[in-house]
Amino acid sequence: MARIVMKFGGTSVADLDRIRIVADRVRRQVEAGDQVAVVVSAMAGVTNQLVGWCQALSPLHDAREYDSVVATGEQVTSGLLAIALQTYGIDARSWLGWQIPLTTDASHGTARIQAIESRQLLARMAQGQVPVVAGFQGIAPTGRVTTLGRGGSDTSAVALAAALRADRCDIYTDVDGVYTTDPRIVPGARRLDRIAYEEMLELASVGAKVLQTRSVELAMKERVRVQVLSSFGAPGEPAVGTLLVDEDEIVEKALVTGIAYARDEAKVTVKNVPDRPGVAAAVFGPLAQAGVNVDMIVQNVSADGTTDMTFTTNQAELPRAIAALDAERAHIGFAQLITDTNVAKISVVGVGMRSHAGVANTMFRTLAEKGINIQVISTSEIKVSVLVGKEYTELAVRALHSAYGLDA
Amino acid sequence: MARIVMKFGGTSVADLDRIRIVADRVRRQVEAGDQVAVVVSAMAGVTNQLVGWCQALSPLHDAREYDSVVATGEQVTSGLLAIALQTYGIDARSWLGWQIPLTTDASHGTARIQAIESRQLLARMAQGQVPVVAGFQGIAPTGRVTTLGRGGSDTSAVALAAALRADRCDIYTDVDGVYTTDPRIVPGARRLDRIAYEEMLELASVGAKVLQTRSVELAMKERVRVQVLSSFGAPGEPAVGTLLVDEDEIVEKALVTGIAYARDEAKVTVKNVPDRPGVAAAVFGPLAQAGVNVDMIVQNVSADGTTDMTFTTNQAELPRAIAALDAERAHIGFAQLITDTNVAKISVVGVGMRSHAGVANTMFRTLAEKGINIQVISTSEIKVSVLVGKEYTELAVRALHSAYGLDA
Repeated sequence: MARIVMKFGGTSVADLDRIRIVADRVRRQVEAGDQVAVVVSAMAGVTNQLVGWCQALSPLHDAREYDSVVATGEQVTSGLLAIALQTYGIDARSWLGWQIPLTTDASHGTARIQAIESRQLLARMAQGQVPVVAGFQGIAPTGRVTTLGRGGSDTSAVALAAALRADRCDIYTDVDGVYTTDPRIVPGARRLDRIAYEEMLELASVGAKVLQTRSVELAMKERVRVQVLSSFGAPGEPAVGTLLVDEDEIVEKALVTGIAYARDEAKVTVKNVPDRPGVAAAVFGPLAQAGVNVDMIVQNVSADGTTDMTFTTNQAELPRAIAALDAERAHIGFAQLITDTNVAKISVVGVGMRSHAGVANTMFRTLAEKGINIQVISTSEIKVSVLVGKEYTELAVRALHSAYGLDA
Repeated sequence: MARIVMKFGGTSVADLDRIRIVADRVRRQVEAGDQVAVVVSAMAGVTNQLVGWCQALSPLHDAREYDSVVATGEQVTSGLLAIALQTYGIDARSWLGWQIPLTTDASHGTARIQAIESRQLLARMAQGQVPVVAGFQGIAPTGRVTTLGRGGSDTSAVALAAALRADRCDIYTDVDGVYTTDPRIVPGARRLDRIAYEEMLELASVGAKVLQTRSVELAMKERVRVQVLSSFGAPGEPAVGTLLVDEDEIVEKALVTGIAYARDEAKVTVKNVPDRPGVAAAVFGPLAQAGVNVDMIVQNVSADGTTDMTFTTNQAELPRAIAALDAERAHIGFAQLITDTNVAKISVVGVGMRSHAGVANTMFRTLAEKGINIQVISTSEIKVSVLVGKEYTELAVRALHSAYGLDA
């Protein structure tokens, strides 16, 4: 007997038929003798509609009210799935964030989980009851409803698995695992049986939208065994997917595990900044205060006592970034802001890089052979990312997938 | 300065434009110097969709899960209206049932309010904040979400008005008051400026779907001055509507105040029940246990030691009624159940009846003149109801409206 958290995303619970299929899948897990807790997202499209309503009423809406509105999506699904499970004779009940309680800080819209009261859930699971937890939501110390940010149900599931000391956290989604790259671009992309947390973290944050980044961080920190599975296979068939594991559980480490891309990046160049100590802080301080997430940062060598600073951020955050910098223009003393959204970030990721030189060079050479100009380069221990013109995305991904021997 | 509870029904908050209009109306009340609390229903159609989902998954769904699902409708509206009010510079915040808390018993689906904690709401209202309360919902002693039954937001509003000792409870709906009968059937129907609680109670329970019956009972018990208003007039214009008052506040009492009808009744005849003491209890006991609300009851004179019992109930409750009786068939000892949904209940209502004879007779004579056969008769102090074939509904209502001199 194992204790398992099963999480189902929005497309997996998109309508009543799919909710029934999910119920059948949970039933099979229960009948296999496991203790099961379920975490659900909102039905596909519902969250977008609720968010759209809040934004239409006020672009700068109260985040506390936004949270109360948006959290209803998961509340609906948790109740419906509990009903569907009961029709299979399973003792199931829904749990809202405030009922558990799953307490968070008061950062409405992007709240972080602080604690999950697991005692009652564990006691009921021991008696055979299946808790159906509304993902994405919690309760702040103020007693108001909070949400964890987009994709937060993944984080709910991993946090719940940690709190319940579950043997595994199965994330059912609309793909059957993590691939070496996007199969829509490279038909020969292969599903990975196992991937290290660190690799998944880099892949998640660079655009392979399988799992929310924070859920992977949390899984890594709490050593939760997360499995990504498709909810679209027949419920009776053995599940195949990708298991997130410790790096040392992967015996034969590939040099490069996967190629990721992101086309929602924006490049900002701050021209002719005075080249003096503290100027980076002057530029990035206001951005941090405005809550702008900066990704790649490049500073050119100085000329004439001034320098250019280039950074990338998500396109959605670009207006806020520009506003924050314009407000500090006199203080920073730059001449001009140049923005470009016609860019794509291409990344190669792999824990094998740690012990191998030449990975970056293979990337640069491959792109050069295809005539693709590299605008910005950024590296980490297990990742090399470059910014290129958006129109080169597919070409670059395909060429790199071949160059690193990832084609099936 | 007055303290006012404003309640807006589903059609009044049906979309974002209408929510903005509601916000504008609340703003005017606040700017007039009043302390205002708002109660909202779900956006029109939302509750039906949520109920439909629960029923599609399981006709006999868990009422606790149903409540958790269905309560989301009002949660969404309360957050959206709070956001809309904030765009007008009004300090507003949403309140869910469990946040207030508005405690109820644990009769899920038809919960009854036990208490409303008003201290925090009153303190915030004194500081100029407008609470936007999600109607229809509460929290049971078990910590689960409850709902008050269809139309329950009216009851939420009246109960809140009582708890806040409000000067008035304004119910904004899609009609501009209570009419002598349905204007869709009788174009000459007149709006009543005032109506006694008792009359409203009879009109509400027989099909004039302006206010939920329980909200009127509560208003009568707590002496809450309820005003029914249209939310579709221009927000700046003086509001006209119908005020619910004590019977003795109505100086000139009409013999008959209004004609109501209900087409969602079902007639059940239990044939050949043994005519012995206790048989009525044997029939209606199981119905009460199954939660079936029985309306009219008629027992025929005995023949051959058996009798026929006829009763009416809501069509929605008919399957449960049949199941409950069939299960007790041997114990009750009846021969046959005959059901008929092709019926309509027509009622004449008026506090003036108390002091006047002949009201019922006028009804019977009027219907006879139109050749309408009366199947069942039921009377109360201020009401006479008859059951007729459904196809006679309009004819009966129009004839009675004229016969009692109600035409404008």
